[in-house]
Amino acid sequence: MAIAIQVNLTTLLKVIEVLGIVAFACSGFIEARRRDMDMVGIFTVGFITAFGGGTLRDLLLDQRPLFWVERQEYVLLIFVLALVITPFTRHISSGRAEKVILLADALGLGLFSVLGTSIAEDAKMPLFVCVMMGVITGIFGGVLRDVLCNEIPLVLRRGQLYATCAFFGCWVSLLLDKADAPEGITLGAGIGVTCVMRLLAVRFNLKLPA
Amino acid sequence: MAIAIQVNLTTLLKVIEVLGIVAFACSGFIEARRRDMDMVGIFTVGFITAFGGGTLRDLLLDQRPLFWVERQEYVLLIFVLALVITPFTRHISSGRAEKVILLADALGLGLFSVLGTSIAEDAKMPLFVCVMMGVITGIFGGVLRDVLCNEIPLVLRRGQLYATCAFFGCWVSLLLDKADAPEGITLGAGIGVTCVMRLLAVRFNLKLPA
Amino acid sequence: MAIAIQVNLTTLLKVIEVLGIVAFACSGFIEARRRDMDMVGIFTVGFITAFGGGTLRDLLLDQRPLFWVERQEYVLLIFVLALVITPFTRHISSGRAEKVILLADALGLGLFSVLGTSIAEDAKMPLFVCVMMGVITGIFGGVLRDVLCNEIPLVLRRGQLYATCAFFGCWVSLLLDKADAPEGITLGAGIGVTCVMRLLAVRFNLKLPA
Repeated sequence: MAIAIQVNLTTLLKVIEVLGIVAFACSGFIEARRRDMDMVGIFTVGFITAFGGGTLRDLLLDQRPLFWVERQEYVLLIFVLALVITPFTRHISSGRAEKVILLADALGLGLFSVLGTSIAEDAKMPLFVCVMMGVITGIFGGVLRDVLCNEIPLVLRRGQLYATCAFFGCWVSLLLDKADAPEGITLGAGIGVTCVMRLLAVRFNLKLPA
Repeated sequence: MAIAIQVNLTTLLKVIEVLGIVAFACSGFIEARRRDMDMVGIFTVGFITAFGGGTLRDLLLDQRPLFWVERQEYVLLIFVLALVITPFTRHISSGRAEKVILLADALGLGLFSVLGTSIAEDAKMPLFVCVMMGVITGIFGGVLRDVLCNEIPLVLRRGQLYATCAFFGCWVSLLLDKADAPEGITLGAGIGVTCVMRLLAVRFNLKLPA
Repeated sequence: MAIAIQVNLTTLLKVIEVLGIVAFACSGFIEARRRDMDMVGIFTVGFITAFGGGTLRDLLLDQRPLFWVERQEYVLLIFVLALVITPFTRHISSGRAEKVILLADALGLGLFSVLGTSIAEDAKMPLFVCVMMGVITGIFGGVLRDVLCNEIPLVLRRGQLYATCAFFGCWVSLLLDKADAPEGITLGAGIGVTCVMRLLAVRFNLKLPA
């Protein structure tokens, strides 16, 4: 019984990871396409946006081998996604591209932040560090994408709530876990809070006070 | 007796580390405020400026866990500092902000460079690598801050001596240590040389020949 | 006999590494000089261009100590090169500088990519990850150089084939190795394919389709 739950939890974390990778990679592809990059540029930006956050997390926590070095399926996945998705991005209107990026990015932010917190918790990190690791895992892929594209990262520009959403989502997930809620609920609640809060922030233009 | 000195040395290194973190974090806060960022941006830039150099040093030397991952007090410290200091930065004139950043940055440069050299020495690195680790620890936080803010890093622009000061300070500290000077003096001399040289360079506009 | 071959292979890898370092460092020096940086800037850009790719590779593969942390000769080499080469770069015409950078960069790309693949193979990484590690080792020094100089990295701009050449060279080297070709040939073929393909791409303006 305990083993069955263990397997299910591992599967759940794997599913979250793959969904996060796909979401961030897509946001990277479309962003690169908007900048008129060629296939190599599109693949590279997708690759870095998808793996940047998790790689930094693994480096900081000293988790080896890195999650994508261990599994070449992930590298292949980005390859195949780039080949499949790029043709579609050609005919997408600029306004719709913006919306797809926004949605994919909010989803990736939620999935990766909560996953990062959960991994840091398993590594027995202190509470505050778990939250920071979650936020870093969630936002760093996008930071790298923006730095590579020669822009001030989204998270640093005064705009709608972004890192703040990940911050709250990670705390929700962490506190539920401390309260012994089942894993499925702690993970789901954290992801939900982050995504919904981010989408609401964009929809209603919520910003922090100066 | 030996234990007492050991404790004192550890305390001394801790004090240097905390002072360096505070100095760099403040330079980051004020810089972020000048760019009209919100609280999350201010916290993030302060966090990265304060921890960037030491994190790269620990990654390069394979020192685990990272110095700030081990101690959540440091993460909390930046949080509290950001909350306390930000209101003051609002009413600061642009000229005074510049001066405070300059001073805080010179102090942080000295503290972190000499600390980095000392840590690399403890890890039994060769002489030249110790100096490079010191310089990297001292300058990398500022490099990250500038890259994130979409500027060519200060250290790469032709300007008043910067990395050069850290370079000399690290050598002073290293050679005094090889000459068996007491730790307090080797650390103090290195920090002093770096800070004073940097402030003199700014005051008298000292530059390297082209 | 086996030991003799082993020694020769180690020497061969060392030679490739040193040549790659020199080639990339030179491309960094000349680039920094064109941006009118001072000696510290020139040294720093050369240092980062030469060691950036290999450092990321070692961090990702968890190879410790880092290749340049272990050998202070490498750090000294960059120092001496910067002192020796910089005076020459002053009188070089802009057109010739461009050509020297291009050639040095193509050479460094070939040497580091194939070396990176070979090191990842020794670390028993899966096939696809070996190729990615090779490409990362080859291109990352140049990416860092461009980010520090506040430009969109060459590899992301739509231009003549770049990462693609490293990609093909790594596969050639890897497949020859799987076919049990002698090490000298697998390494030489991979390096040759990458360099020649890159130079042809520049000469005949070969680009990927949009």
